[in-house]
Amino acid sequence: MSTNLSITYTAPWKLEAVDLPIPKREFRGKILEHAVIVKVIATNICGSDQHIYRGRFDVPAGTVLGHEITGEIIEIGRDVLHLAVGDIVSVPFNVSCGRCRNCKTQHPEVCETVNDQAPLGAYGFDLGGWQGGQSQYCLVPYADFALLKFPDRDQALDRMMDLAFLSDILPTGYHGCVSAKVKPGSTVYIAGAGPVGRAAAMSARLLGASCVIIGDQNKERLAVLKKGGYQTVDLSTSGSLKDKVDAILGVPEVDCGVDAVGYEAHGHGENADTELPETALNDVMDITRAGGSIGIPGIYVGGDPGSKLPRPKKGTLDLILGQVWVKSLTMTTGMAPVMNYSYDLMQAILWNRIDVQSVMDIKVVPLTAGVDAYKTFSDGSPKKFVLNPNGYLKNS
Amino acid sequence: MSTNLSITYTAPWKLEAVDLPIPKREFRGKILEHAVIVKVIATNICGSDQHIYRGRFDVPAGTVLGHEITGEIIEIGRDVLHLAVGDIVSVPFNVSCGRCRNCKTQHPEVCETVNDQAPLGAYGFDLGGWQGGQSQYCLVPYADFALLKFPDRDQALDRMMDLAFLSDILPTGYHGCVSAKVKPGSTVYIAGAGPVGRAAAMSARLLGASCVIIGDQNKERLAVLKKGGYQTVDLSTSGSLKDKVDAILGVPEVDCGVDAVGYEAHGHGENADTELPETALNDVMDITRAGGSIGIPGIYVGGDPGSKLPRPKKGTLDLILGQVWVKSLTMTTGMAPVMNYSYDLMQAILWNRIDVQSVMDIKVVPLTAGVDAYKTFSDGSPKKFVLNPNGYLKNS
Amino acid sequence: MSTNLSITYTAPWKLEAVDLPIPKREFRGKILEHAVIVKVIATNICGSDQHIYRGRFDVPAGTVLGHEITGEIIEIGRDVLHLAVGDIVSVPFNVSCGRCRNCKTQHPEVCETVNDQAPLGAYGFDLGGWQGGQSQYCLVPYADFALLKFPDRDQALDRMMDLAFLSDILPTGYHGCVSAKVKPGSTVYIAGAGPVGRAAAMSARLLGASCVIIGDQNKERLAVLKKGGYQTVDLSTSGSLKDKVDAILGVPEVDCGVDAVGYEAHGHGENADTELPETALNDVMDITRAGGSIGIPGIYVGGDPGSKLPRPKKGTLDLILGQVWVKSLTMTTGMAPVMNYSYDLMQAILWNRIDVQSVMDIKVVPLTAGVDAYKTFSDGSPKKFVLNPNGYLKNS
Amino acid sequence: MSTNLSITYTAPWKLEAVDLPIPKREFRGKILEHAVIVKVIATNICGSDQHIYRGRFDVPAGTVLGHEITGEIIEIGRDVLHLAVGDIVSVPFNVSCGRCRNCKTQHPEVCETVNDQAPLGAYGFDLGGWQGGQSQYCLVPYADFALLKFPDRDQALDRMMDLAFLSDILPTGYHGCVSAKVKPGSTVYIAGAGPVGRAAAMSARLLGASCVIIGDQNKERLAVLKKGGYQTVDLSTSGSLKDKVDAILGVPEVDCGVDAVGYEAHGHGENADTELPETALNDVMDITRAGGSIGIPGIYVGGDPGSKLPRPKKGTLDLILGQVWVKSLTMTTGMAPVMNYSYDLMQAILWNRIDVQSVMDIKVVPLTAGVDAYKTFSDGSPKKFVLNPNGYLKNS
Repeated sequence: MSTNLSITYTAPWKLEAVDLPIPKREFRGKILEHAVIVKVIATNICGSDQHIYRGRFDVPAGTVLGHEITGEIIEIGRDVLHLAVGDIVSVPFNVSCGRCRNCKTQHPEVCETVNDQAPLGAYGFDLGGWQGGQSQYCLVPYADFALLKFPDRDQALDRMMDLAFLSDILPTGYHGCVSAKVKPGSTVYIAGAGPVGRAAAMSARLLGASCVIIGDQNKERLAVLKKGGYQTVDLSTSGSLKDKVDAILGVPEVDCGVDAVGYEAHGHGENADTELPETALNDVMDITRAGGSIGIPGIYVGGDPGSKLPRPKKGTLDLILGQVWVKSLTMTTGMAPVMNYSYDLMQAILWNRIDVQSVMDIKVVPLTAGVDAYKTFSDGSPKKFVLNPNGYLKNS
Repeated sequence: MSTNLSITYTAPWKLEAVDLPIPKREFRGKILEHAVIVKVIATNICGSDQHIYRGRFDVPAGTVLGHEITGEIIEIGRDVLHLAVGDIVSVPFNVSCGRCRNCKTQHPEVCETVNDQAPLGAYGFDLGGWQGGQSQYCLVPYADFALLKFPDRDQALDRMMDLAFLSDILPTGYHGCVSAKVKPGSTVYIAGAGPVGRAAAMSARLLGASCVIIGDQNKERLAVLKKGGYQTVDLSTSGSLKDKVDAILGVPEVDCGVDAVGYEAHGHGENADTELPETALNDVMDITRAGGSIGIPGIYVGGDPGSKLPRPKKGTLDLILGQVWVKSLTMTTGMAPVMNYSYDLMQAILWNRIDVQSVMDIKVVPLTAGVDAYKTFSDGSPKKFVLNPNGYLKNS
Repeated sequence: MSTNLSITYTAPWKLEAVDLPIPKREFRGKILEHAVIVKVIATNICGSDQHIYRGRFDVPAGTVLGHEITGEIIEIGRDVLHLAVGDIVSVPFNVSCGRCRNCKTQHPEVCETVNDQAPLGAYGFDLGGWQGGQSQYCLVPYADFALLKFPDRDQALDRMMDLAFLSDILPTGYHGCVSAKVKPGSTVYIAGAGPVGRAAAMSARLLGASCVIIGDQNKERLAVLKKGGYQTVDLSTSGSLKDKVDAILGVPEVDCGVDAVGYEAHGHGENADTELPETALNDVMDITRAGGSIGIPGIYVGGDPGSKLPRPKKGTLDLILGQVWVKSLTMTTGMAPVMNYSYDLMQAILWNRIDVQSVMDIKVVPLTAGVDAYKTFSDGSPKKFVLNPNGYLKNS
Repeated sequence: MSTNLSITYTAPWKLEAVDLPIPKREFRGKILEHAVIVKVIATNICGSDQHIYRGRFDVPAGTVLGHEITGEIIEIGRDVLHLAVGDIVSVPFNVSCGRCRNCKTQHPEVCETVNDQAPLGAYGFDLGGWQGGQSQYCLVPYADFALLKFPDRDQALDRMMDLAFLSDILPTGYHGCVSAKVKPGSTVYIAGAGPVGRAAAMSARLLGASCVIIGDQNKERLAVLKKGGYQTVDLSTSGSLKDKVDAILGVPEVDCGVDAVGYEAHGHGENADTELPETALNDVMDITRAGGSIGIPGIYVGGDPGSKLPRPKKGTLDLILGQVWVKSLTMTTGMAPVMNYSYDLMQAILWNRIDVQSVMDIKVVPLTAGVDAYKTFSDGSPKKFVLNPNGYLKNS
């Protein structure tokens, strides 16, 4: 019987499920009075985990992957005053302290404390050395500040298939929409129909958008969204994005643009299979109307070790900035500050204002099936995989 | 055959439908190059018209009432460049110039140009001398700035039973919610289940609110909202508002409070039939949580000629400001800047994100039945009356 | 030799300097791992302390007064990670946890954790039971979140006569201006020339205001401001506020209004010596232009035990709300969230953008002279008293 | 004697002062009831005029240059109601209608009406076909909406050397700072010590910035700023920008970054004489701290006909977007919406809160000397040239 079965990174395209010791409330030799140990209920595979898997984001061998974590608290530090053993909590993927200048001004996504190398921290990414949560147990620091406690244990377990997305993709898609200033009446273009793009679509609707259009090269993913009542644009076919949007809206532009793809973007039409890293961002820049705003929750990185192209390798992009400037666009980049949104989105879920499952196409698998799930997801499956390391959930 | 049948004010409780000349593009002896003449399609009776009817807001005898106006342009001035004869337009109830400091900073509701007495103007209120729109034809100044043109004539006529509320109550209710900072996940208390309160309820939902609670003393009005899926609180029964809200939410407070009643408020429980002008505002002040915000679209006035109470007579109110201060509340007062919202709300209607009719309980009557409709509405009917002065609509 | 000489409240108009034990890192029987003990460098007498002194705000006998605290850390808890013994820190007057919903959304002034009775906490007020800082030593909880550490010890001691005001009045005056939306070019009226009014005046200038007008009945206080280059209005003379403002600006209104007086306000002209609690707030409501905003940092309370008037006794005020509504004003009430501003204002001080001493008229006295200083301040002295309990400062 | 002496563009590096007919209140064959004719008092040469002069922004031969215009109204249309002949006015460089969706939402810089080719208009740029103002007379459409009227004629003429910059560079620099979220206490880096950079520096100080650092390769320009009390960084010397900023602030980063250079940027150190169009923007991206914001008032264009580099020729830039994303930066691009700021900045000037002349190094010359002034400015002179076409000003 395993003690702490965990999915770890070995090398590009090589992951392993290994058994590790249960983590202690310690980090680099110091006891953390602000930390808790969480027994993981649900931990999802994210598009950004795929960057690691495909060798496009470097982490040390042995890193436990996973940053979409929901769990039950089994141990707490002396200075954790707002939580108790047995609480069911959502763990925002950003590691953040609640005490630095950035955290105190609602920028927990660029916490200055938790990573010696740069002001941002996350589980399972070697951003600060925090192990991921695709495991049975996980160390969570600064718990009082960081965690979202669900109000009722039974309700939480009952609604886990919605609530499990509060740790990352739902707030991430929502952040893209908030950054793009989506509001009642807005028309919205979302680049990318993966899980973050779908979360953005739901978020845009929750924010009151009139028409939400999602573009992708993957017909299966688009089909899921079409079924949910969203407008879609197939980027694998010929024709310009402007013409495709015009056919839907009667104008070749939208009020708000969201890049939910990031740096592993592919081209359009005949280039749909070719990696062209500027495509998604230049698309949203191109399609957003003058005076509009763009949210960029899709990940870009300081350097992409696996890219074959010289610019992306060093982290730069060739962008249509001149056209952007002429249109007076505003752009917001960066990781979502998950906790800024997760309480509100939890309320929306618990009062049935969001139906995550309608477009998320969830598949629950045991942790032991996690390595295979990475491969299936990487191959373009529209499924969102939820790992079930401790049997709280029913596998699907 | 009438030339310009119009509902005019004679004295408190006394209105008349009289025939007047069709208005010209002139005002106080000057030709208005920026004005249009509108042939009225729909013009609704508003709760604020009732203040005039009941002698609680003074206007000169002969004033044409009505400020909720939708119509077709039949004549335009030389400097009207963005509109044409035949366009179907929504007329915001605020008269505003688009050229003063307030209009240019998105405060058209306190336009400095259109009223010599004070910086605000409206149709049918003697606020600047602009005649109302409960008539067959109406003069509309500053048309390019002020009017919302519907994109398609046939669609507009087809959706008139939703679009007709863009001239006032839908943006007014929405303004209350925006002022109260309603956003996804918010819990909201709305004082008043009249048309503005119902518009606020719809708006709160469009803005993503998790739970929307409306309080009123009128069971019929509450029933309409309950049917639409909203939470309601009956203020005519005994018990405190805090307890009634607690029973719904599990906490005796909401994130956002909206006063959709104004100065003709009534008391609670055994005082439900007694006019107590501070009730609605003190209620929202009392029920909104620390750090929250309050929107006050309900009308308050500098002086209430018909009040029997000394404070309201001179326009002051006895408010629980000490309690408000301790909770750090923010309050926004005043008329809605309709045009700030009406384009967005039109988009929400045209893309089927709002279903106005679900809670509005609309009754279309000919202009000749307008005087009776005032009485029925004043007696507490849950109906929203739409006058049909030129036969564009089907009477109901 | 005293161990912890402290100014305590006994009864209205009766304070005592008594020697108490040095506080421990404990509260109500529990050890606080997040707390520090501060050796007080400077602790100022505030206008709100005067409310207690005059019997207008009830606290238990024995309460140590004082909430404007700057000091040196002499002991830290196990979970205080960002501070060290020897650090010089400003203590925001609000006690706040950094972990509740309000603190995490930049509303530390309505912290839900630190006071069982209501969501707000402060030192020396019986708002949560936290003893004040007019003493030699003081317990400060949630230190990592709450405290502002000065970057350099020597610089901090050198600039203490400016930095000592970061714990309350400078952020409080600034909050009033931010709430009133003061920005470059704004004209501003500030009710009250006491320390908070003067801090508001400095803040308005820092925010770029074009013309800053302060009104008061006390000629000495006005003289200090006039010398600092501000416009003043003498409310003790006859004539309306509108006329007095008109004489300065050419219009009888300002863009932004700040009430820096609160509930112990006095009347105008011949009523300048009579307590009329609505005066200051109704003045700013009256003088602020349509579409403008009002900040209300002056204190209002749920009930005023010492008031001879029935409304203020129960915490309500008779306000010109009708006139406010017609002008579409926005109002922000409540205590300043000090930490939201204190870093920025520290930067402004350290780079010489604010000259606090130019208008603050500071007098440094030993703690033993504190009781007398309360009396002098209550009698209307323009001095701002800074207590020097441990001899760090030079008495003046 | 000339009737309307005007500076016109002939070809790259070739301008001419020619006499043209006085413009009528007509445009493309239509009489404009909303327009006025302005007799020019002051019209300044802008860095963006230089783009045209150097062949880097294409306009038809015969275009009258100039968009920084202050003048006296000598003729008005029938629908101009808020202005009169004899008024002294500042003309925002953006041509905007006040009636389209963008203008009505405070985006006059992307007016949808005034240019058939794209939603933005400006005088003297062939953006909509509006002739420039480096002439004796100029046609100004939508005058009621567009123009800022100075409150007093004598005061306006007296303060012309400050007020003349309200038509462009002062609001443009200010927009950069507002976009970069400069507020009290902020540290700011401004790329470029030309007139816009200097206006940004003044604006940052007005907004309360603690430390304002300007970087340039031109020692003369930096000297002007140093004399005004600003921090400067010489980009022509070796060493990284981060090190140079660290030497001033003690940290290698600022809160807010402003690119006041645009697409004709040059490199650092040994590349200081080489055009490297991404330099300024990548610099501000590099130096702004995580969670910070960037304003980009420096011009970028959809295509640069005069560039020798392939990317800029087609309007794209190679940007360090990966690094930006990791820091969660927000960026605002585009022309300044001048009218959003010009009233406020006028107030700041008239109340002596800004001293434009302290850093602007103004030289007033007759229009006939304008062509030479273009050359001197292009050669790197720190002077800001003000043309004096009608003798209102004293040449310097």
